[in-house]
Amino acid sequence: MKIGLDIMGGDYAPKAAVLGAIEAYRVLPAGQSLVLVGDKDVAVSILQENEFNPDHFEFVHTTEVIGMGEHPTKAIAQKPDSSIARGYNLLKTGEIQAFSSAGNTGAMLVGAMFSVKTIPGVIRPALTAIVPKLKGGLGILLDVGANADCKPDMLLQFGLLGSLFAEAVYGIATPKVALMNIGEEEEKGNILSLAAYPLMKASSQYNFVGNVEGRDLFGDAADVFVCDGFTGNIIVKLAESYYVITRKKGFNDEFFNRFNYEQYGGSTILGINAPVVVGHGISSPEAIKNMVLLSRNMAESNLVEKIKQAFV
Amino acid sequence: MKIGLDIMGGDYAPKAAVLGAIEAYRVLPAGQSLVLVGDKDVAVSILQENEFNPDHFEFVHTTEVIGMGEHPTKAIAQKPDSSIARGYNLLKTGEIQAFSSAGNTGAMLVGAMFSVKTIPGVIRPALTAIVPKLKGGLGILLDVGANADCKPDMLLQFGLLGSLFAEAVYGIATPKVALMNIGEEEEKGNILSLAAYPLMKASSQYNFVGNVEGRDLFGDAADVFVCDGFTGNIIVKLAESYYVITRKKGFNDEFFNRFNYEQYGGSTILGINAPVVVGHGISSPEAIKNMVLLSRNMAESNLVEKIKQAFV
Repeated sequence: MKIGLDIMGGDYAPKAAVLGAIEAYRVLPAGQSLVLVGDKDVAVSILQENEFNPDHFEFVHTTEVIGMGEHPTKAIAQKPDSSIARGYNLLKTGEIQAFSSAGNTGAMLVGAMFSVKTIPGVIRPALTAIVPKLKGGLGILLDVGANADCKPDMLLQFGLLGSLFAEAVYGIATPKVALMNIGEEEEKGNILSLAAYPLMKASSQYNFVGNVEGRDLFGDAADVFVCDGFTGNIIVKLAESYYVITRKKGFNDEFFNRFNYEQYGGSTILGINAPVVVGHGISSPEAIKNMVLLSRNMAESNLVEKIKQAFV
Repeated sequence: MKIGLDIMGGDYAPKAAVLGAIEAYRVLPAGQSLVLVGDKDVAVSILQENEFNPDHFEFVHTTEVIGMGEHPTKAIAQKPDSSIARGYNLLKTGEIQAFSSAGNTGAMLVGAMFSVKTIPGVIRPALTAIVPKLKGGLGILLDVGANADCKPDMLLQFGLLGSLFAEAVYGIATPKVALMNIGEEEEKGNILSLAAYPLMKASSQYNFVGNVEGRDLFGDAADVFVCDGFTGNIIVKLAESYYVITRKKGFNDEFFNRFNYEQYGGSTILGINAPVVVGHGISSPEAIKNMVLLSRNMAESNLVEKIKQAFV
């Protein structure tokens, strides 16, 4: 299996990405190799500085970079030789089996739609985030920003995407899928959640357990938390700020430490025809390694094939 | 000034409410007295058990109670002698100048609309929550649940309501008002926030500082955070769960301790013709005391008059 990595994406690219590639190399088994997409000369010189043999990697040299603040659609269209555009091209042609980047999230989403494309039947792909559970283990929250406005049938589908992801990649059997809402009762909510609830309840494709509230995110009521991307994005950034605060205050606690995004690799894009992970902009080498491994886990678990079958 | 308190509202009512009334009595200055609305006999017996002279309070005896899980509109209509309905009646006729309850939030909202009514010009009242700031002081988040679905001009108004509240009750000069969003740039957001942004930006009635994100809630970017009630409710319940977790873990930290809802008294209903506070269902006597004092502070600051003038 060939695993593609955008080495130009992220606030500390290319150095953090290349060092992360070295860390990933050290744990990848035989038969799984990395393809670094980006400025080859710079990458090789970073590798040599770190006394790492560049021959352990394949390289796809690119000459353009999509910046973190660039407009996604314009950037993808105007920079065909960017690491993101080229990475997606490799994914589309099957030269790599997974792709990840800590770069521009919007460009990663747009690039996916234009290259590997959305799985037939999926209305819109969703971005996931991992949330630690108080009693151990983890939950999956989606969408966390790909779709600021959602329709009820999109939330219905996010439940299925999240359920398949939780089962295939994290080994959670019959994941409990909940709707993030403002009350536990079926009649509570906004127009969107009130309309999504009966659709999710009627689904025979996953284990819908009803509404949960903001306070339930770290509990055991659910494994998959479904919401629109506006709500999910605010939740994720709020949760991250708590992690940052506990770290600044020097709290060393097993639960709070599990908020560390570095452990989880990043957000997966679910509902497209290939395994793709988008890392946090501030990704360290450790985070990059876990991002690469998550994209590999997605590929190895045949998640995309499972999603395709579920949406036939 | 006469300050009304529903002694039947809350998970630990009437005991916690009556004990809270005693605590409030001890700090209220001359000229400010409490009117306890609820079952007088029970209240008097709790006071006597605690060796407190019932003559320090006025009583309005009621025979009905609206439960925490009751349907708000039905309960208000069907229980005219409930402590909430009677309390609002006293407020409407001017027999009390402020009212608070740790009871059914929905019934408190509906009761307000049916009795003291919405201030002319205000589309919909909003519920507030207080959020502690890392560097000290506090911020105000609204709406936190009165309006699950909002229109852009409602968010515009929430900015004004929050700004007037922050200034009048908390002494924050020229409060910075921000729109809770999923990106800092003007062009980021969902349909609602994209439409609200230009309205808020054009307002000459308050100091709009632009978009903030979930991670900015405890920082100094803004004093007033505006969002729809769905988003705000999830934020508040998530924030509360963090507080509960830090307490369970025994973290004794000045910042996290300031998450303690007991200190803040509760959520104010802004945009109605009287000062009203809704306390947390689990309110302790300490929380009840602060709820009473917050309703008093609202009355003392002439907040309602200031809101009326701003909406003329």
